[in-house]
Amino acid sequence: MEKSAEKTKKKIDISPRAKEMPASPIRKTEPYAIEAMKRGIMVYGLNVGQPDIETPHVFFDAVRNFPNKVVAYQRSQGDSDYLAALVGYYKGCGYNVTEKDIIVTTGGSEAIIFAMQAVASVGDEIIVFEPFYTNYNGYAVMCGVKLVPVTSKAEDGYHLPPKADILAKITSRTRAILVCTPNNPTGTVLKRSEMKMLAEIALEKNLFLISDEVYREFVYEGEHTGVLEFPEIADRAILLDSVSKRYSLCGARIGCVVSKNADVIGVCIRFGQARLCSPTLEQYGTTALTKLPKSYFDEIHAEYKRRRDVTVDALQKMDGVLCRKPSGAFYIMAKLPIRDTDEFAQWMLTDFQMHKETVRVAPGAGFYATPGLGKDEIRLAYVLEVPRLKRAMEVLEAGIKEYRGKHA
Amino acid sequence: MEKSAEKTKKKIDISPRAKEMPASPIRKTEPYAIEAMKRGIMVYGLNVGQPDIETPHVFFDAVRNFPNKVVAYQRSQGDSDYLAALVGYYKGCGYNVTEKDIIVTTGGSEAIIFAMQAVASVGDEIIVFEPFYTNYNGYAVMCGVKLVPVTSKAEDGYHLPPKADILAKITSRTRAILVCTPNNPTGTVLKRSEMKMLAEIALEKNLFLISDEVYREFVYEGEHTGVLEFPEIADRAILLDSVSKRYSLCGARIGCVVSKNADVIGVCIRFGQARLCSPTLEQYGTTALTKLPKSYFDEIHAEYKRRRDVTVDALQKMDGVLCRKPSGAFYIMAKLPIRDTDEFAQWMLTDFQMHKETVRVAPGAGFYATPGLGKDEIRLAYVLEVPRLKRAMEVLEAGIKEYRGKHA
Repeated sequence: MEKSAEKTKKKIDISPRAKEMPASPIRKTEPYAIEAMKRGIMVYGLNVGQPDIETPHVFFDAVRNFPNKVVAYQRSQGDSDYLAALVGYYKGCGYNVTEKDIIVTTGGSEAIIFAMQAVASVGDEIIVFEPFYTNYNGYAVMCGVKLVPVTSKAEDGYHLPPKADILAKITSRTRAILVCTPNNPTGTVLKRSEMKMLAEIALEKNLFLISDEVYREFVYEGEHTGVLEFPEIADRAILLDSVSKRYSLCGARIGCVVSKNADVIGVCIRFGQARLCSPTLEQYGTTALTKLPKSYFDEIHAEYKRRRDVTVDALQKMDGVLCRKPSGAFYIMAKLPIRDTDEFAQWMLTDFQMHKETVRVAPGAGFYATPGLGKDEIRLAYVLEVPRLKRAMEVLEAGIKEYRGKHA
Repeated sequence: MEKSAEKTKKKIDISPRAKEMPASPIRKTEPYAIEAMKRGIMVYGLNVGQPDIETPHVFFDAVRNFPNKVVAYQRSQGDSDYLAALVGYYKGCGYNVTEKDIIVTTGGSEAIIFAMQAVASVGDEIIVFEPFYTNYNGYAVMCGVKLVPVTSKAEDGYHLPPKADILAKITSRTRAILVCTPNNPTGTVLKRSEMKMLAEIALEKNLFLISDEVYREFVYEGEHTGVLEFPEIADRAILLDSVSKRYSLCGARIGCVVSKNADVIGVCIRFGQARLCSPTLEQYGTTALTKLPKSYFDEIHAEYKRRRDVTVDALQKMDGVLCRKPSGAFYIMAKLPIRDTDEFAQWMLTDFQMHKETVRVAPGAGFYATPGLGKDEIRLAYVLEVPRLKRAMEVLEAGIKEYRGKHA
C-alpha cells in the first residue's frame, strides 16, 4: 500500500452496539488472576459458579463409549434420546411435558438468548428483578432488548417487591417478565405466592413469564416453585434450564428451553437450525446422567448446605460486612464496608496477598441495571470444599481490612 | 382459573422478530425425512454438509483421556492450549497471528454472529453475494442486521460481479462485506484478484471485510486466498473459521474468529463472556487434531475430488439440469427444470421413492435474499461415498423425471 493511501486511511470502528457490550463482572478480572498466579499466588476462585464437585463418572463412561465414528451434526432440536430423557426428568419434577415442548440449547446462555428473541423485538422491554444474573445485561445488548429493572432489597431477603412496584414498570413495550429462582446472585428461593403473583401479572398484562430455574436442585430451606406449575399460564410460561450446575458439567454447554407454547418452541427451533446444533458428544453423555438416582442430589445438597453455612457464618462475623443466609443456589450477595468493589476485586488480585494466597470475587454493580446500585456489594460462589472455603474467608477478611486501611 | 378470566384471556404472540426468523432450507424438511424413514425408505441426505468421513481417531483418543474430573467452564476466549495450537495451524497457512488475535467460538455459526454484532448495530447493513450460505439470513434476523445482496451469476461460475455493482449497493448504513471462499453453496473459489478488489472496496468505503473460510482445505483447482493475506486491511479483516468440515467434526461446535483488530477481538471476548465458554471437552479433543500431518488432508482432498466429479458428471447428463464444475468446498448449485424446488424437495420425501430410496436436497431460494431468485435451483452436498453418490444421482434423476411428468 502506498504512503498517501496510508495517510488518508480512515480508522475503522466497531459498532455502537458492540461498544455497549459490557464485560462480565464475573470474568473480567481474569487477566489479573492469571498475573497473580504467575507470581505464585494461590487464587481462591469465588467469582464464578464453577463447582468443584466431580462430574459423575457415568458421563465420562458414556462419552468414552460414544458409538459413532463421526461426530456428526445432531438434530437442531436436540438428540432424540436426550429429549426423551428430559421428558422423564421433568416428569420427576412433576411437570407433564412432551418432547415437542423442548429444545436443547448450547448451555443455559443460549436458552436465555433464544427466549429473549422469541418474545421481544428490537427495542422491546423485559422486566427483571435486580440484582440479577449479570449476563442478562450482555444478552440484552446482543438481542437489542431493554431490561427494565425492579429492585429487590437485601433487607427483604431479595424477595420480590410488591405487585404495584412491578406494575409501575410495565409499558406498552413490555413483553415479558424474566425471573430466576433459586436466584443467582442472591440465593433467594421465591415463594409459591410470589410466583403466583408473577403469573397473575403475566395474565393481566398479557406478558410472557420466563423463568430461569437452573438451580432447581439447590434448595436448602423451603421448596422450589417452577413456572410450569401454573396451568393458567401454560401458553406464556417459558422455562430456561441447564445441566451445568445440576451435574457439575459447566463446560458441556447443554441447556434447554421448555414451553407449551408451540410458537415459542417453533421459533426457538428455527433459531436452532441457524446455529445447526448443540454439541453432539455432550448430549450423548448427558443422556446417561438423567438416569442418576435422586440420592445423587441428596449428597450434593448436604455438601452445599455445609458450604453455605460456613461461608455465611464467616461473612457475618467480619467487621462491617452484611449478608443474610440464602436458601438456595450457591451464591451470596454481601455488602462490604467498601465504596467501590470493582476496584477492590481488582486490588485483591494485583496488590494483596496473605501467605501467597488471595480471593477472587465478583463485584456487585454488574448485577444491577440501575446505575450506582451494588457498588458496595460482591457476589460469592461457595463452590469449594469446606476447609478451603474457611481459609478463603480468612484471606478475604484480611483483604477487606487491609484495603480499608489503605483506602479510608 | 375462573371461566370469566379464561374468556377474557388474550392470545399471546411471539415477537415480530421471531416471526421473521426463517426456517433453514437445509433442515426444514426434517419432519418429512423422518416420516419417510419411518415408512422404510432410505433417504440419501445431500441436503446438509455433513461429511461421512470418519472423525480422526486422535480426537476420540484425546477425549477418552481427558485428564480432569470436572468438565469445568473453559476460558471465554478459549482453551489456552487450543489457542496456541491454532496459532500453529495458521502459521502453516502462512498467517502470522498470535493468541490475542483469536477467540474460540461455538461453531462457525457463533463466529458469524459475533462478527456481525461486532461490526453492525441494529439496522446497519452488510453486503453479501448471493447465493450465500442460507443461515446468514437467520443470523441477520437474530442480530437485527440487514443483508444487502449483490447477485453472483451461474454463468460467471458464481465469481464476483464487477466492482461497480458492489459499490452501487453501499450506503451510509453499510458496515461490512461478508464473503465466503471456498463458497458454500456454490463451491466457487475466489481468485486473488477478487479478494484484492474486496480489500480495495473495504479501504475506499471504510468497511470491514468478513471472510468465511471454513472450506480452506477443500480446493481442487486453483488456490485459496484468505482475507489475512492483505496486510493493508489488517485493521478491518475478520476471518471466520470452524473445524467442522476440516476434521469431519460438525457436532463438536468449535470455530473461531481471527482478527488483528484488537477492538473486534475485545468485543467478541465480551460476547464470549456472556455465553461463558465453548465446549470444554471438544476443545481438548480438537487440540490434538491440530497436530495431524498435512497428508491427512491430501487423502480427504482426493476423495472429495472424486465425489465432485461423479456428482457433476451425473448432473450434467440429466435432462434439463444445468450446473458447472465448482473448484472447492463440497457443494453444487444446480438449476433444475422445475419451477419450485421448495415443493420438489418436499415431494421427494413425501411422494416419491425408487426401490424404497429417495434423495433429500436443499431448495435454492433460501440461499438468496432477492425474492424470486433460486426457486429453480437446489444445493447438493456431495458428502457420501462414490457408490452411494452414484446411486443417489440415479434416484434424483428419476425423481426429477417423475415430478416433471406430474407437474408439467
